[in-house]
Amino acid sequence: MTQDLTRSWTVSELASVVSGVVVGQGQHIITQVAALSSAGPAAVSFCESAMQAQLQVTQAGVILVQDALHDACPLHAIIVDQPRLAFAKLLSTLFPKTRPDAGISDAAIIEDTCQIDRTASIGPGCVLGSACVVESGVVLEAGCVLGSGVRVGRDTHLFPRVTLYSNTELGQRCEVHSGAVIGKPGFGFVLDHQKHWNSVPQIGRVRLGNDVVIGANTTIDCGALNDTIISDGVKCDNQVQIGHNVVVGAHTLICGCVGIGGSVEIGPHCVIGGQSGIADHIKIAENVMLAGSSGVGQDILVSGVYGGDPAQPIMQWKRSCVHIAQLDRWAQRIRALEMNCE
Amino acid sequence: MTQDLTRSWTVSELASVVSGVVVGQGQHIITQVAALSSAGPAAVSFCESAMQAQLQVTQAGVILVQDALHDACPLHAIIVDQPRLAFAKLLSTLFPKTRPDAGISDAAIIEDTCQIDRTASIGPGCVLGSACVVESGVVLEAGCVLGSGVRVGRDTHLFPRVTLYSNTELGQRCEVHSGAVIGKPGFGFVLDHQKHWNSVPQIGRVRLGNDVVIGANTTIDCGALNDTIISDGVKCDNQVQIGHNVVVGAHTLICGCVGIGGSVEIGPHCVIGGQSGIADHIKIAENVMLAGSSGVGQDILVSGVYGGDPAQPIMQWKRSCVHIAQLDRWAQRIRALEMNCE
Amino acid sequence: MTQDLTRSWTVSELASVVSGVVVGQGQHIITQVAALSSAGPAAVSFCESAMQAQLQVTQAGVILVQDALHDACPLHAIIVDQPRLAFAKLLSTLFPKTRPDAGISDAAIIEDTCQIDRTASIGPGCVLGSACVVESGVVLEAGCVLGSGVRVGRDTHLFPRVTLYSNTELGQRCEVHSGAVIGKPGFGFVLDHQKHWNSVPQIGRVRLGNDVVIGANTTIDCGALNDTIISDGVKCDNQVQIGHNVVVGAHTLICGCVGIGGSVEIGPHCVIGGQSGIADHIKIAENVMLAGSSGVGQDILVSGVYGGDPAQPIMQWKRSCVHIAQLDRWAQRIRALEMNCE
Repeated sequence: MTQDLTRSWTVSELASVVSGVVVGQGQHIITQVAALSSAGPAAVSFCESAMQAQLQVTQAGVILVQDALHDACPLHAIIVDQPRLAFAKLLSTLFPKTRPDAGISDAAIIEDTCQIDRTASIGPGCVLGSACVVESGVVLEAGCVLGSGVRVGRDTHLFPRVTLYSNTELGQRCEVHSGAVIGKPGFGFVLDHQKHWNSVPQIGRVRLGNDVVIGANTTIDCGALNDTIISDGVKCDNQVQIGHNVVVGAHTLICGCVGIGGSVEIGPHCVIGGQSGIADHIKIAENVMLAGSSGVGQDILVSGVYGGDPAQPIMQWKRSCVHIAQLDRWAQRIRALEMNCE
Repeated sequence: MTQDLTRSWTVSELASVVSGVVVGQGQHIITQVAALSSAGPAAVSFCESAMQAQLQVTQAGVILVQDALHDACPLHAIIVDQPRLAFAKLLSTLFPKTRPDAGISDAAIIEDTCQIDRTASIGPGCVLGSACVVESGVVLEAGCVLGSGVRVGRDTHLFPRVTLYSNTELGQRCEVHSGAVIGKPGFGFVLDHQKHWNSVPQIGRVRLGNDVVIGANTTIDCGALNDTIISDGVKCDNQVQIGHNVVVGAHTLICGCVGIGGSVEIGPHCVIGGQSGIADHIKIAENVMLAGSSGVGQDILVSGVYGGDPAQPIMQWKRSCVHIAQLDRWAQRIRALEMNCE
Repeated sequence: MTQDLTRSWTVSELASVVSGVVVGQGQHIITQVAALSSAGPAAVSFCESAMQAQLQVTQAGVILVQDALHDACPLHAIIVDQPRLAFAKLLSTLFPKTRPDAGISDAAIIEDTCQIDRTASIGPGCVLGSACVVESGVVLEAGCVLGSGVRVGRDTHLFPRVTLYSNTELGQRCEVHSGAVIGKPGFGFVLDHQKHWNSVPQIGRVRLGNDVVIGANTTIDCGALNDTIISDGVKCDNQVQIGHNVVVGAHTLICGCVGIGGSVEIGPHCVIGGQSGIADHIKIAENVMLAGSSGVGQDILVSGVYGGDPAQPIMQWKRSCVHIAQLDRWAQRIRALEMNCE
């Protein structure tokens, strides 16, 4: 729970990174980051109001806290508005991301018709089809394969072994993690007279907005006629499956192992809990939060928190969970009633 | 919902592609394909009987319809037997697939003992072990890795970054999408006296029939002693997991994120809904349709539609869903009864 | 169900492989392995007590059995303590794994600062970042990508197209199957005032113990501050997702398609059934067995067998399953009671 920093920092230096106000000694030396529970006097940590009981036992050298809590800190404090957010910002500074150098690896294979910005970095084993456009600051790590006509926006980072099928478009500052497959033809088939499945050509694309994160081994299919759209700021965890023609609204967060059927529309600012499943053609309003393992077979048109399969308002689902665990007793009670009432 | 064609077509030309009969002007010019709802006079679309209400509002230039509906088309019609199937065929002609040129990339690494047909196309970064056989018209896109003794049948297409473990056999005209892993040793372990898991060598293979489609990042394990078999015409979506010794019958369709345990037998012409799970050793009859998120822990020996976890006949499951959402009210009713009956 | 051996063996030779005692003719010739149900006189098979009814019909030439059952074997027997375990050992000898030759492929790209043992085998298309350490006997098959500072312990085998992000550590004798992605930054985000998700840098690692097996397309995220830990002897099937900071205890077995949320702690010697989901921060005791498709939203602190969503003791869940399938009849019974009691 403790990580050493590559150099030591004073509390004042840390405060200036997060635009916070020091309470205590600015010259105190910090050489570690840690969770509150394991932090010692050389460590910086953070505390939100829900965690304040931990302030009584922590030995952290300096803690990012809101104004109301700084008195409770054992040693020093840095007052910030949003401690968790400030801590994230601090970590970005203390542990900066390393990007590979600009340039195209000798072991990459790129069609002549591609436009590659000279500040982009293309790793060994990458293969780019015809007419791809790779903007400034883009990183394609080793083994990424792009079909033809793919566009990758400024400062977007593909981790190793990502596949983008032809005509996929990625916005700026996206991250696509290893093993993701974007733009594969959607799963569309129609039966013929012999009861054989004939594939329906899928001629749409996948378009990702800006600041989208796609997890490892996640798959996103292209649209049948129109496009599959992942809007700005969407964060998508590992092993998520997104079917053809899906539209995901801006700043929605999709946890791991979620399956989203074809033509689903999810509004902005939703949170889709892990392993949830959403059936074809479902509409989900904005600001909907689904608990893990939810199953959505009907539209959710009212913002709120839902859970269960079939998905229900969360409080109802929580009570249902209790009931399901007691069905055995219910069976006895119904039987008793029947005997009583005979 | 509208896609431009690369050139313009007359209605008559389109009709000849689908062997349909023109009702209206054969020389009318079509430059787009579109869904009925967004089609304009320059677009071709299609209409099945379930969609016929849309005929009153669409402005499509020409519509593929069955005979009974051509009168309702706003402009021109092409009469066909199965409109959706004809539309799929039309799209295949209007948006033909491009296959890479035949030949072996300089950046592919192929053991001398392989037999590669000269009409096959093997992309950069492909690695083929000893004694692989690649038949005519096969495409292996960039970064595919084949173990030793793998056979790939005529006109089968592997998309980028597919892995076929040793001795896997693929039939003709299959498509295997990016990131799929076929032939990995099955998950077989046995405990020893120290309660450690010892792996049971898996010496079977995976065999795919003809016209099989395997989705992105899908995994299919090889058999323990006998083979894992995916029969002709099976279509399998993304992120499906198929355990060792499974047999999937011909023309069965498996939606995304389905997990199929070891030694499961699924009959022909089934449809397995997304995210369903099927336990080890289960048998499923032919013509079984499972709703999404079904959980199958007992054999399903009668054809029909099922849903739920545990899987039940679908109408029963639908009623159960209603009941589950009302358990809270049931609890109150039972309590009320108990008070009444005291 | 029958596989030919590459050469013939006598019963005595087979017995010496498994340190068993021959009952019958040691010179009997065996040329096949088979399941009991399909074994003929030239085949070796095994029988555990649960399978003993099959001894009356099998024609196997020699059977690995416990002492108590050798009389029931039709031809010859080899007496061993644990027949299934002995059979696994026998298969390892009869079908030995082939490892590629030591050495580094010309088509691998390895930073100068890496330490590669000369007995390791590194396949074509592998890319290793700075300061990786690859110990003796390691195999990296084609297309594996390792970030910087990765350590791979002695005799560990990476199958084709595995990604290990920077600083991942693998123990000895591990197997990581094709498409697995280990060490990706965990899915950690925090909202800012504009309701945009800001990523929280994930500075922990993933550490695998010894003798760990990781399935195809499985993903394991690195920790936020501390490490994600997969202990010795853990066996993990395909398409499993393991979130940041998870700790999996020694010799636990995780079946396919399981999703494990962040900061989950699973004890040693557990079995997690396929497609189960475990919510963030859950603790599971040692020796817990979860049935397939379980959903764990509360700690399980008592060893035992559980199932269902929400997870319950297995017998309770089995009865609940029966009840859920009968809710329709319950509704009628409650209604009847209400009418009776009015």
